[in-house]
Parts: sequence; structure tokens; C-alpha cells
Amino acid sequence: MNDTFLKACRGEEVPYTPIWIMRQAGRYLPEYRAIRGKADFLTMCKTPELAAEVTLQPIDILNVDAAILFSDILIPCEAMGQGLDFHEGKGPLLGPPIRDKETVDKLFVPDPEETMGFVMDTIRLLRKELAGRVPLIGFAGAPLTTATYMIEGGTSKNFLNTKMMIYQNPELYKSFMDKVTATITEYLKAQISAGAQAVQIFDTWGGIFSPADFREHALSYVQTIIKSLKEWMAKERDESVPIIYFVGETAGLLEDIKTSGADVFGVDWRINLDEAIKRLGGDVVVQGNMDPLSTFLPKDKIEERVKKVLAQASSARGHIFNLGHGVVPQTPPDNVIALVEMVHRLSKR
Amino acid sequence: MNDTFLKACRGEEVPYTPIWIMRQAGRYLPEYRAIRGKADFLTMCKTPELAAEVTLQPIDILNVDAAILFSDILIPCEAMGQGLDFHEGKGPLLGPPIRDKETVDKLFVPDPEETMGFVMDTIRLLRKELAGRVPLIGFAGAPLTTATYMIEGGTSKNFLNTKMMIYQNPELYKSFMDKVTATITEYLKAQISAGAQAVQIFDTWGGIFSPADFREHALSYVQTIIKSLKEWMAKERDESVPIIYFVGETAGLLEDIKTSGADVFGVDWRINLDEAIKRLGGDVVVQGNMDPLSTFLPKDKIEERVKKVLAQASSARGHIFNLGHGVVPQTPPDNVIALVEMVHRLSKR
Repeated sequence: MNDTFLKACRGEEVPYTPIWIMRQAGRYLPEYRAIRGKADFLTMCKTPELAAEVTLQPIDILNVDAAILFSDILIPCEAMGQGLDFHEGKGPLLGPPIRDKETVDKLFVPDPEETMGFVMDTIRLLRKELAGRVPLIGFAGAPLTTATYMIEGGTSKNFLNTKMMIYQNPELYKSFMDKVTATITEYLKAQISAGAQAVQIFDTWGGIFSPADFREHALSYVQTIIKSLKEWMAKERDESVPIIYFVGETAGLLEDIKTSGADVFGVDWRINLDEAIKRLGGDVVVQGNMDPLSTFLPKDKIEERVKKVLAQASSARGHIFNLGHGVVPQTPPDNVIALVEMVHRLSKR
Repeated sequence: MNDTFLKACRGEEVPYTPIWIMRQAGRYLPEYRAIRGKADFLTMCKTPELAAEVTLQPIDILNVDAAILFSDILIPCEAMGQGLDFHEGKGPLLGPPIRDKETVDKLFVPDPEETMGFVMDTIRLLRKELAGRVPLIGFAGAPLTTATYMIEGGTSKNFLNTKMMIYQNPELYKSFMDKVTATITEYLKAQISAGAQAVQIFDTWGGIFSPADFREHALSYVQTIIKSLKEWMAKERDESVPIIYFVGETAGLLEDIKTSGADVFGVDWRINLDEAIKRLGGDVVVQGNMDPLSTFLPKDKIEERVKKVLAQASSARGHIFNLGHGVVPQTPPDNVIALVEMVHRLSKR
């Protein structure tokens, strides 16, 4: 079994730097598009056989050191009672938007197995099919990031409605976030119970805030989740699974992110990794952080960047190589395959 | 004459912290919308009487310490030969996009008075109408930010085409950027000659890069502009006007931004201002940095934030209060009026 990823998460000695890639099961792969041509995105998420199949594709094609569950961070929003739809080329559409007491009150904290059982079924199927080849990562959106979609109804330019709720109706925001936080906590417990061997909490939109707002309106809820998960794992499980916390636009927030309680900190590409490690306090495990679009470089230039990231990571207790955000659909798959090979070769101890 | 803004730019003693607000002449003001109802956006930019009228509105309404020319950073793109149009609710549309040698070769470095004379006419008119009440700030987009619009054809999610040009055809990008840089240099010289008493270079999209990419593909061109302007001012003008460099998502890039040669550094709200000042090296003049959407807070909470920013700014050589980005159209004007009053009152020496 390749447990390099899990060892690196725990800051243990590894024979080389493990790598996985955010959105590694995605549209840049022709093999993914072949399946996607036969089923829409939500059907793929909700059909364990299809979700498992695309989850496994990059393991064979790229030789990455971890699989990440194919799913979407908006699945729990639907389970909480909000309508969810994906339109080709338009991204996710949630509705009606959560902006007042009435819509917040209608949301509930769902039982994950009852409402999102297809995710846990996918995880159980994957653990069987992976048969220990590489570990399986589960995931969920962080409460703030999840909430922005629920409040805005989809993606947003300046998160006006989210910030208006926070600034003008903080009690409503808090009661809403408490429901989202409870939902995500239970959802991640269910994923771990089903067999997820690590979980990543995606706070893609955490960087929309000033540090003080980030602490109060985003991070505090993540701290609650991580604390609950750790207490639950200590009590109910033989072994704790590592928790990765990824924030987009991390550069101004790293000192705060350190207090999340996560085992691994995801760093985006807008800051040098050595500087990020320093600001996280030094004795940390980091994940990142090449610009996703630098996979469009010629291979010799990609190799230069891999060397640089590996060198910058040397001051951390542990490092998992990744891009600073998801790989984009237009990315040449050959370059991603080459990237994985480079990381393995150049980091060999 | 209120020269508090100019004194602060130079790091001189001021009786209170001056304030102006990015996009202060904008849609959040009913007085602006009244004029905008009669003319489309581009017509307003190109009609000196209208552009001057909306430039002056916030001086009376808000009591800010500087006027900023009403115009758009895409005006030079049109002058270089690319088509420019604004569609209601869709933002700017430039076309056809600049993505190959053919389209780059067709662009020229225009004579600013010949092709953008309406901007200089607006400045001349404004200096007359302002009659020294407050200083007038001119502006241009930084080369990278300007180039992203020209390459993408408008706004963008991940700047794929821009980064593809940079990563796959760096020579083409460089030849394109040399033209953009020359255009903006001449444009800013013309604005200063016409009477702009300070200029701001907007690098809204500078934060899409890793620090190394930012240095090579964005900052180096800004350094060229600032060096040219300073040499030209030293030779041709009695007095140098201050140059402000604003970068969006600055947090990971501050050490580099310091080397731009600018007199004032604009800081967005994603980092605490005291931390930003430290990373800029301490002995600097900064501008910023309240979250534009925090103007939606109740006034007592806005006042708390003003106090915090003023306190954090105390370690700088000089401070100009501003938001971390442009004020949004939905902002309550009353809160912006209150903000200006608070900054003046709370910063009184």
C-alpha cells in the first residue's frame, strides 16, 4: 500500500513527496469527458458507480498518491433543503437564495446517510476498489464557502449578499452558519465512518475577508468542525484521520489559519511556500502550491517550478505537493502526468 | 487650498488623515445616476463637461480630500486600436481579443492628446473648476491589468488566455506589454501635463500571480513606467507629482511591490494594515484599507473599523485613508458621507 500521503499528513518520514491534484478527476481528462458525455454532473455525483469510476481514473492515468472522492461541495446544500441544479457552462445554481429568517428557518440539519447516502456508498465502493492502493480523501466545503453559494445562489463577484447579511444581520448569519456547521460536521463524520482516510475542508472563498472578519465569520466555524471531529475520532475511532484545511487567497490570513486545528494547511500560489511556512509558525505540514495554470508551461519550465516549490517546502515538517487551486479543464493532461513524475523523481530522498 | 492629500503622499505632517474613495464618482450616488440616465458610460467618459461634473460630485457630497478623474482604465485600449464597448450589466467588452502576433502587431502606441484628448480636456476643465479646492488624481491601469482585458476580451475568472500567452509565448507577451507600457507611460505624462496632481496606477489583477510571476510579468513593466515618469518629471517639470501603486490581493506580494518605485502603496483589505506596513519595510506611505463592503455596517461599527485602521496606520510614514477596492453601486451614500466625517474627526492631530 502506498501510504506516503498519509505519512506526510502526519509529518512522518516519507521516501518522496506525495502529490495529488485538486480537481484531478475532472474535465481536462478525455476519460472523464467520455463518462460525462453520458450523464450530467449531478447524476455522476449521485451514482456511486460513476462517481467511483471517475475518482479512480487519475490514479491510473497520473500515478498520484491519493484519490479524492468525486463529488461537489454543494451536495449538502441540497440535503439541507435548498434546490440545486447545474447548468452547462453556467456553474451551480442554488435556489431560492438564503437571505432572510424565513429561508434560514426552513433549512434543516440532515442525516447524512439518509440524504446523501450516495456519497457514503461511493466511499465504500471506492475503498473496496482501491483495495489499499492509495488512500481516499473525503471532503466538504467550509461553512463560509458553502454559505456564500447558498446566500448568493451561485458564484459571486464581490459576495455582496453574504457580507450584507454578516454586516447588517449578524444574528441571522450566525443561526444560518450554525446549521451549516452542524451539517458539515455530521457529513464529514459520515464520510470518515464510510472509509475516508483523510478529509479536506475547502474554504475557497475564505480570502474575501479582512483577517478580523475571517476569524469571526469563517474560521470560528471551521474550528468548531475540527474540534468536533477530533473529539469524535478520539472517542469513536481506533485512529484519527488527517484533516486538511484549504483556504483560497491565504496570504493575509496564515497566522489565523494556523489556529484552525487542522493537521495540514493548504496554501494557494499567491505566496511563496517558504514564506507561508514561516507565517504558519514553521513546525507545520503544508500542501501546495503551484499556480494551476503553470501546467501550461513547457515541461522544462514546469520542472524548474517543481524544484522551486520542493526547495521552499524543505522548511516544513511535512509537504504534500498540489496545485494552489483546482486544475482547469483546458489543461494538457500530458503536462499533469509529467508533473506527477517530476515531483516523485525530484523529491526522492 | 486643501493640500492634506498631497502632503500625506509625500509623508509630510498633516492636520488629519486625508481620505478619498476608489470609485467615489459612481453609481452609488443618486446624483451620478441622474447624469448616467442621460448618457451612456462611454459618452460620459468622452464628454469633458459630463466627466468633470461627476468627478466633482463627491467633493461636495462626501467632503473627500481629493478628486479622481472620472474615466475608465480601458480608454487606452481603444486608443491602441482595439474595439471598446460597454453593455449595461455586462461590463466592458473589448474586441477582437489580442492573442496572437497578428493582433499584437496591429496595435500602436498612440499619441494621447490626439487619441484620448477628451481625458486631458477633462483634466484641464477640472483644474479650472476645482480652483485649488482639492487636488486632482489622474490614473491608468497597470500594464498587466490593462493587458488582461485586452487578451481576455473583458473580465475573466482565471485569466486563462493571459497566462497561456505568458507561459506558452513569452516573447509575444513581452512585445505586447512593451506597447501597453509605452502607451500608459505617455498617457500618464499627458495627464500630468494637463494638470493631474497625483496619479494612481491600478493593478487590480496583479494578485493573480505567484510572487515570481508577478515580478517578471507585471511589476517589471510598472517599474519601467514609474522610472520613466520620474526621469521625465525631474527634467521637464518644476515639481514631481506623487505616484500611487494599487495592487488587488496584495498580501503575498508586498515585499516586491515595495520595489515598484511608487511614492504611495495601495493596500487591499485582505491583510491588516500594520502587517502590510511592516512587510513594505516600515518607512512608507500607504493608502487603504477598509473592506468596501464594510460600508454596509451600522455607523457605530464603521467607526470601530475606522479607529482600527487609523491605529494600524500609525506605524507608517504617511497614510491616506481609502477602501481596499472600489465602492460598490449598492452602498448607502449616507454611510460613505459618515465614513469621511469619521476619518477626519478621529484622525485630528
